[in-house]
Amino acid sequence: MPLLPLGPFPSDAGYATAVALDEADPLRCFRAEFATPDPNLIYLDGNSLGRLPNATIDRLAGVVADEWGDELIRSWPNRWWDLADKVGGQIAPLIGAAADDVIVTDSTSVVLFKLIMGALQIRQGPKQIVTDDLNFPTDLYVADGVARLLGDTEVTVVNTERADPTEAVVAAIDSTTTLVTLSHVAFKSGYLYDMERITSAAHDAGALVLWDLSHSVGVVPIDLRGCAADMAAGCTYKYLNGGPGSPAFLYVAPSLQLDNPLSGWWGHRDPFAFTGEYEPDASIRRFQTGTMPILSLSAIEPSVALVRKAGVVAIRRKSTALTEFFIELCDRLLEPLGFLLASPRDPNRRGSHVSLQHADGWRITQALIDQGQVIPDFRAPDNIRFGFAPLYTSFVDVHTTALRIVELLAAGIPLQYSAGRGSVS
Amino acid sequence: MPLLPLGPFPSDAGYATAVALDEADPLRCFRAEFATPDPNLIYLDGNSLGRLPNATIDRLAGVVADEWGDELIRSWPNRWWDLADKVGGQIAPLIGAAADDVIVTDSTSVVLFKLIMGALQIRQGPKQIVTDDLNFPTDLYVADGVARLLGDTEVTVVNTERADPTEAVVAAIDSTTTLVTLSHVAFKSGYLYDMERITSAAHDAGALVLWDLSHSVGVVPIDLRGCAADMAAGCTYKYLNGGPGSPAFLYVAPSLQLDNPLSGWWGHRDPFAFTGEYEPDASIRRFQTGTMPILSLSAIEPSVALVRKAGVVAIRRKSTALTEFFIELCDRLLEPLGFLLASPRDPNRRGSHVSLQHADGWRITQALIDQGQVIPDFRAPDNIRFGFAPLYTSFVDVHTTALRIVELLAAGIPLQYSAGRGSVS
Repeated sequence: MPLLPLGPFPSDAGYATAVALDEADPLRCFRAEFATPDPNLIYLDGNSLGRLPNATIDRLAGVVADEWGDELIRSWPNRWWDLADKVGGQIAPLIGAAADDVIVTDSTSVVLFKLIMGALQIRQGPKQIVTDDLNFPTDLYVADGVARLLGDTEVTVVNTERADPTEAVVAAIDSTTTLVTLSHVAFKSGYLYDMERITSAAHDAGALVLWDLSHSVGVVPIDLRGCAADMAAGCTYKYLNGGPGSPAFLYVAPSLQLDNPLSGWWGHRDPFAFTGEYEPDASIRRFQTGTMPILSLSAIEPSVALVRKAGVVAIRRKSTALTEFFIELCDRLLEPLGFLLASPRDPNRRGSHVSLQHADGWRITQALIDQGQVIPDFRAPDNIRFGFAPLYTSFVDVHTTALRIVELLAAGIPLQYSAGRGSVS
Repeated sequence: MPLLPLGPFPSDAGYATAVALDEADPLRCFRAEFATPDPNLIYLDGNSLGRLPNATIDRLAGVVADEWGDELIRSWPNRWWDLADKVGGQIAPLIGAAADDVIVTDSTSVVLFKLIMGALQIRQGPKQIVTDDLNFPTDLYVADGVARLLGDTEVTVVNTERADPTEAVVAAIDSTTTLVTLSHVAFKSGYLYDMERITSAAHDAGALVLWDLSHSVGVVPIDLRGCAADMAAGCTYKYLNGGPGSPAFLYVAPSLQLDNPLSGWWGHRDPFAFTGEYEPDASIRRFQTGTMPILSLSAIEPSVALVRKAGVVAIRRKSTALTEFFIELCDRLLEPLGFLLASPRDPNRRGSHVSLQHADGWRITQALIDQGQVIPDFRAPDNIRFGFAPLYTSFVDVHTTALRIVELLAAGIPLQYSAGRGSVS
């Protein structure tokens, strides 16, 4: 969808453009697939917790009443045993992977541990992990935790403040590098790494690459096989709309023979033989550990189906148009009010959320949320994140958000919002 | 509840006794608290997956529609952030722990990794883990996995075939032992360890003790503080009825300064500061790692409330009466048909399930399940497990089960049940 030129500002402040963009939006019918109990609320935190698909309501009611309540233990062999494999296979085409190479298991943090520890264990001698200061904190905590356990491992956190992050990381990779681990889209700024360039540079140096796709899966086209990426992890509760804390997915290239350091019965090649010896499954299933939380796992399937139906290429096209439109509104309406764009201006280097810095960022975020009109989120010290989920965010939503911020600052931020901070990744 | 004497066999085969026991059962009103879509089905696999409490249906519908669908990200600070601590605190009195020392997190297998690795990391030099051949396989796989990662750790699996298991384990503990880890109730035989004696013997030798309470929590009184136990883990989907794969709980004695080897943002003392340095929370919360699966976590609360309302002492009293009654019926009716009691005859050394060995165990189990009358489960090579969940299993259920087995063998096991095996812990 080409971005239409905005109308003259500030006469309609771009409203006609927003309406025209919505009318031309091929994904606009997807909005009705999500529960919207408050139609006046503009929800721009789908990059933290995606909205509830209507189909998920029925699916969960069925899992509870029929599969658990009625079928009881019989649902294990009949429905649940392969569910994590099945959902992994459904996520696979969204990340350019074969169905057999993806599985759903545990939290993103635990999955990162399995992959980082697994990757370092196949290398001899001193090890070096290269990551960056844009990475989500838990990725850094896990890398540090693995380094503490192994003892001979150094973690290098690349400073990205003074150069393009892709170039800064490439410059930091050398023959001492064992593993490069990055968030594909940075949680705070929305910076989108050049996956192909980083992966290729790492391989040239003999290193492995692990991508955290939490902020890109379902909204940015990803081609793990095309880039020859080694490993990937990601959460399912942001643009995949899998529900609060729904379990993470994991990808390992089929050519990479990694062990799961968290050996448990669900990764055993024959769990119900109940043997005392651990024999890992040959398939990606070896990265399972314990019993999966079936209610949370079941919620992922209907929402992934929606993303697949819309198609990631169409989603990305709309995502780019949404963020471009928001940035243009920011330039015209918000920049004069002290907001600073903290996300890349180049759409090819930007995910689906836009961060604005403002000295009163926390107070502005809280006031918007408490007025029940717009929900963005806040990242310390001064970042307001606006997440655009193309399946349910409209261009009029974007336009209204900008105007509500203008109105809030014109009226003055209510005094009750003093200092503080809050909220979830 | 004292066990009434059985009537003359085989005239009523104990039916009058069963009816009298049910009439005298102070917990009989709890049966109505559970969904029973098929009132003819006798479900004896609550030791694998507990039944669905009616209250959980409404709770989950509310979590989905209101907390996720309507409140969206606002539920994180308002409802979900402390939920794992809250549910941990609700489980605490069932295991003789203070509310602040228990948390819900991850699968049992991942929790076992945290505790075993955490415990070994605070000891210098070569380490020895003592466990036994009654332990659930995942417990052994995790211990072996930790030993592989650490390198200087030996795992000793005590053979319990020739002695009382408690005595055999006590005999195996010596000054080289670092950690003793056992299932409080064995998954196959239902053997109940003497927690106090083992813990005391381990402490005398300078070792730590980790109890897996999966098969005892909610049905056997447990006093972790009274025994001075160091650590405990357990699942919530058996007698706690938390639903398929609901997350596990974890206990660490407040005097024990363990680190969580799976450092992640949810264990950070201030996760939303998003700092690059991992600083563990001072509380039990430091054993969190990633984002919790909120739907599965939410299902635990209403079911734990039922267990607390009934009281573990009353539950244990009925549990003992149920297993005693079943064993008496076995002696009289099933032993002549080739069944062998594979659980302890001493009720003080027995949990809430009874295992019977039979050469045709798998075929008998499958035929009972497929006829839709009784659901026990099967553990290779020849164990049929009958789990008695005192909140919803009646004495007439126990009686009918024995008679249905007699009828099945009298009619002959249908030919379609040939070789094979199945099912979940």
